[in-house]
Amino acid sequence: MNFAELWAELLPVGRDEHTGGYRRYSWTEPDAACRAWFARTAARLGLRTDCDGNGNLWAWWDTPGNGAESALVTGSHLDSVPDGGAFDGPLGIVSAFAAIAQLRNEGFRPARPIGVAAFTEEEGARFGVACLGSRLLAGLVDPAGARDLRDQDGISLDMAMRAAGRDPALIGQDEKLLAGIGEYVELHIEQGSVLDGLGAAVGVADGIWPHGRWRLDFTGRADHAGTTRLPDRRDPMLPFAATALAARQAATDLGALATFGKVIAEPGAANAISSSVHCWLDARAPDSKVLDLVIAAVSDVAAEAAGMHGVGFELRQESFTPAVSFDPALRDRIAVVLAAAGQRAPVLPTGAGHDAGVLAARIPTAMLFVRNPTGVSHSPAEHAEPADCKAGVTALTAVLADLAGQ
Amino acid sequence: MNFAELWAELLPVGRDEHTGGYRRYSWTEPDAACRAWFARTAARLGLRTDCDGNGNLWAWWDTPGNGAESALVTGSHLDSVPDGGAFDGPLGIVSAFAAIAQLRNEGFRPARPIGVAAFTEEEGARFGVACLGSRLLAGLVDPAGARDLRDQDGISLDMAMRAAGRDPALIGQDEKLLAGIGEYVELHIEQGSVLDGLGAAVGVADGIWPHGRWRLDFTGRADHAGTTRLPDRRDPMLPFAATALAARQAATDLGALATFGKVIAEPGAANAISSSVHCWLDARAPDSKVLDLVIAAVSDVAAEAAGMHGVGFELRQESFTPAVSFDPALRDRIAVVLAAAGQRAPVLPTGAGHDAGVLAARIPTAMLFVRNPTGVSHSPAEHAEPADCKAGVTALTAVLADLAGQ
Repeated sequence: MNFAELWAELLPVGRDEHTGGYRRYSWTEPDAACRAWFARTAARLGLRTDCDGNGNLWAWWDTPGNGAESALVTGSHLDSVPDGGAFDGPLGIVSAFAAIAQLRNEGFRPARPIGVAAFTEEEGARFGVACLGSRLLAGLVDPAGARDLRDQDGISLDMAMRAAGRDPALIGQDEKLLAGIGEYVELHIEQGSVLDGLGAAVGVADGIWPHGRWRLDFTGRADHAGTTRLPDRRDPMLPFAATALAARQAATDLGALATFGKVIAEPGAANAISSSVHCWLDARAPDSKVLDLVIAAVSDVAAEAAGMHGVGFELRQESFTPAVSFDPALRDRIAVVLAAAGQRAPVLPTGAGHDAGVLAARIPTAMLFVRNPTGVSHSPAEHAEPADCKAGVTALTAVLADLAGQ
Repeated sequence: MNFAELWAELLPVGRDEHTGGYRRYSWTEPDAACRAWFARTAARLGLRTDCDGNGNLWAWWDTPGNGAESALVTGSHLDSVPDGGAFDGPLGIVSAFAAIAQLRNEGFRPARPIGVAAFTEEEGARFGVACLGSRLLAGLVDPAGARDLRDQDGISLDMAMRAAGRDPALIGQDEKLLAGIGEYVELHIEQGSVLDGLGAAVGVADGIWPHGRWRLDFTGRADHAGTTRLPDRRDPMLPFAATALAARQAATDLGALATFGKVIAEPGAANAISSSVHCWLDARAPDSKVLDLVIAAVSDVAAEAAGMHGVGFELRQESFTPAVSFDPALRDRIAVVLAAAGQRAPVLPTGAGHDAGVLAARIPTAMLFVRNPTGVSHSPAEHAEPADCKAGVTALTAVLADLAGQ
């Protein structure tokens, strides 16, 4: 059971035949198919599987010890953004299973349990909160609020979990599970092209920029587009437009990133002025002070433009992740292991959030990145070369062997 | 069978329980329910019903003559914009049936056939072309192109009609049906508040501004919102935003109307740069030269902004209706009839398109408007007072009696 075989098995699950992109949203049919693949694969490797109260999956290579050793966990996520690529998330899980298969083949005997985790709703594509599974596990999200999160069709997380046969009453912090984890190492495709520029197949993460997601609601009044005089209009599309441009300007001025990738105009008829426009701002910056300045600049323009057009405006933070510095000792040890294995692995920062970034608040974590030659991510065109995926498995195998060795 | 009873029967059909608005899209379940209501009502009035090849419904009060008399037709449409109001369209049809019921009660014997028409897809809410049913009937739309029009889910008109049990091969110009119609008089709720300002319950239409719908497609590249440097982005949301603001500016400068009420960002994830943004411009102006200037101004800004962001841009006209002047002789005759009946009915222009505007190219047409106290239209808040609806029925009854009298 090697990387290519495992990869080929998972590849068709949740893939849209028209776009070629993935729609693996948590607690949907494709998600259930991903979970079934995870369980099947773990069973073939002789791993014990488990689903925690938050819906995160775990596959354990247990050791016959007294249970006092802390586990070494690797993994990532199986869910996708709408029309996402094949690699973002699954690469880390397939690589983890492939590394364990290789260690088994080599007769490796771990001195401590090794776990493979698949965190649920990492992308926040269905319920709007990124890294929801790891945040709940770490106690960083209120379970009652999380149960009431709604998807675009008004289905709550509570309803979705029940429909999938899970008990939503069990979500929330799991101190016992966390306490048993010594380190978490996540392998992920790079979501930029820094490694390609450096000519390296694999890299080690330095830290993650602080970042968050804000929901902006502009509330106007639906009216006929052909009969309502301009001064009588309360059109929420116009302050949205001004705000989208202001966000880009603020990001440019302040050396940050700001994106509106999701906008919903209601009722959405070509010949009706919108009653409301809902939109989501993704913003990231090198430090939280700069991020605050970006949000303040966007909010100011939005409020002013809304006022000019007689439109109501509200801004609400949906998620926020402070700056993360991965554990320096773990990072340095990984660098030494990879150098010893003959792999050049430069250290690089990232603007992307990950479950590893969330867990870094509670346990030592590290990340390995695999080269993305175009840097394209969250798109069907996302790609990594087979040779680089293989290099990623080799690196992860060496890291697991070192950290869980006798 | 009076107006209030007929109105109450149709009111719940296709109403969304959350928004209170209507979603009566052509060839859907609610549309079928509206059609069944039309057939039932016509049957109770002793009218013969028919569905033409384009899916427009007809109810005929036939006369025992030799068939040489041209018919007098009244009517409107039953379909709605997304979350539209109860009055836009249905008011004209319910009023037509109520007027015929009253004429029957009074023992009126028409000298020529009277028809009630319900035109399909007037709003263009499903297939994007407003007044599609009347345009097809009048030979103003290519049938092959119309069959291939797609709704938001990729369903073609061809597929939708087949699913509803209609033969799409039959759509297109119907010269025989048109030749049999002498005049068309449409009653409609006003989609502004001019009548309210004048203190009149009913008005007569002067003409319709030239107007149309344009689809703009901005094609960028999906990328991760957290890792793609600003200069590397090809984000189609930004030229869309610049274009939405430019459209309003052009309309203000030129004394026209321009609206973006529908926008679709794909893939639509909060943490992904959009691969494409599709949006629809509704534009109307007092004359076609001004309208051309508005479209040119919007197109110039869109092309320039798209170029700045490395984004592809295409603009395509989806529908266009030239300026309409309703038949002056018919308008004047109606004014005389209403004055004789003691109803003050001022003459007013409108920016809204109607099937009457389409048919005006082929047959003498006229329109009656019923007061809309707030002017709100294409919204669940659209409203007309019962007394004004009754005044509308009285006016339409007088007009039918005059035009189809012995």
